[in-house]
Amino acid sequence: MSSLVFLDPAYPAGRLADINAPQLPVTLQGVNRGDGVFESMLYTQQAVRKIEAHLARLAVSAEASDLPIPDERSWRAAVDTAVADFDATGGAEEAVVKLVAMRGELDQDPAVCWVTVTPAPRVGMEQRETGVDVLFLDRGYDSKLAERAPWLLMGAKTLSYAVNMAALRYARKHGAHEVIFTSADGVVLEAPTATVLLAQRDGETRRLLTPMLETGILPGTTQSAIFDAAQQDGWELGYGPLRPEDLYQADGVWLVSSVRLLTPVRTLDAKPIRMDAELHEQLSALADSIR
Amino acid sequence: MSSLVFLDPAYPAGRLADINAPQLPVTLQGVNRGDGVFESMLYTQQAVRKIEAHLARLAVSAEASDLPIPDERSWRAAVDTAVADFDATGGAEEAVVKLVAMRGELDQDPAVCWVTVTPAPRVGMEQRETGVDVLFLDRGYDSKLAERAPWLLMGAKTLSYAVNMAALRYARKHGAHEVIFTSADGVVLEAPTATVLLAQRDGETRRLLTPMLETGILPGTTQSAIFDAAQQDGWELGYGPLRPEDLYQADGVWLVSSVRLLTPVRTLDAKPIRMDAELHEQLSALADSIR
Repeated sequence: MSSLVFLDPAYPAGRLADINAPQLPVTLQGVNRGDGVFESMLYTQQAVRKIEAHLARLAVSAEASDLPIPDERSWRAAVDTAVADFDATGGAEEAVVKLVAMRGELDQDPAVCWVTVTPAPRVGMEQRETGVDVLFLDRGYDSKLAERAPWLLMGAKTLSYAVNMAALRYARKHGAHEVIFTSADGVVLEAPTATVLLAQRDGETRRLLTPMLETGILPGTTQSAIFDAAQQDGWELGYGPLRPEDLYQADGVWLVSSVRLLTPVRTLDAKPIRMDAELHEQLSALADSIR
Repeated sequence: MSSLVFLDPAYPAGRLADINAPQLPVTLQGVNRGDGVFESMLYTQQAVRKIEAHLARLAVSAEASDLPIPDERSWRAAVDTAVADFDATGGAEEAVVKLVAMRGELDQDPAVCWVTVTPAPRVGMEQRETGVDVLFLDRGYDSKLAERAPWLLMGAKTLSYAVNMAALRYARKHGAHEVIFTSADGVVLEAPTATVLLAQRDGETRRLLTPMLETGILPGTTQSAIFDAAQQDGWELGYGPLRPEDLYQADGVWLVSSVRLLTPVRTLDAKPIRMDAELHEQLSALADSIR
């Protein structure tokens, strides 16, 4: 069973609600305008992973959207209530804890906020093993745009994900599973719901690279945690402006996200990508160790 | 009072529902991903204006989003039920009829579709008289991008409007009312919820211009109807690649939309815009005559 808890000032631990019942009026700006923010976290082995990093990013997204949201304590209490209910009603080996805050009907209304816990989609777990075929698609933005255009909400995780979803549907209609967006000036950006990671092996040196944040991509909480762990483990780290050639020449390319963890890229635009099995094993162990 | 009617195969005339009550589960992709499409129409003097053009554009947006939606007859029946209920419970001189179709929880679920009728916001009616101060903001896209990147859903009216709303908030924080987006290559595009129109007077010749659709803007139903009426009335018509200079040199610049009709632009980036009173009066009469 899945669980739903609303943040509600009258219920300090959050208000449990029926996830299958109607809950939202159609008049909310969040519903009509995709005007809200969200986070997805992995819940497994009795722990919600990286909750601190996700709450911090939620606050940044909300700030970029001028959307006042409840404090961290309220979110943590609602998460606790939601996962307790989830476990009590069956649980799952891996689950997705989703935080959503959306604008109400009027600008002065408080944000409508909730937490859901649902079993993790099987396909993501399978793709950790099988890998994915990926298309490069143009995101249309210049890689230097983000800083000068705050109204574009680049780097904020909003509910306006129609383009991300359309890109994934486009990929599936064209025989692939996933997408890596590139900028108008040809720089590698991110996947619609994941961060891009690549590894290079150079003699004894192992190097881990990811696109730089200045391109306007979402700061990946899993990428960041893997980087921390990899550095401890002796890897060199780097932040690119990365080009498609860099991915083709890498010793491994992955999509990383909180719920799906580390997904190996098998092909890019139907061309095979090298995958160093040892590096993959090392990185998978690092990803699994994230708390 | 406002009215809400869901499209529902079990109710051929649509199913009346309480607009103030919870109606949508939180699990819909439309709710979580801004993954859906919409239209807004003006209802005044017992008529929903341009319903045919709006239903046609809704179908185009849905097609671009791979979202199967009910046929026109179902939408028209729901609109009839909704406006009848609206009038029976008080009505209003001007009202907004909104059509929404959003993706359900699972990809194979039917779209969740509804019609609302609400009184038109007073501010839009006032701005027809007072005019608006407008900022140019960079939309970040190249003006030639739309054709080659269908996954960006340019020209589709989706629920993912967070950037449009953020741009309007940005303008309001900076002393303006409205925004006109420009492309990365400096071409005039559209307003977040309106089309740009400009007029030139050249001796006896009156010319009406609007940005060309190839820039990826939404095809404006009101712009199109005004163009038709203006041509009948002897105006010359043109489709630009328009530059900001063209707006500064025009004899009138307007934002046009279905609900707000014709809103004069008073300033652009704080520089005054000429407004030929006679042309404004003529165009206002044309806009009012649209059925």
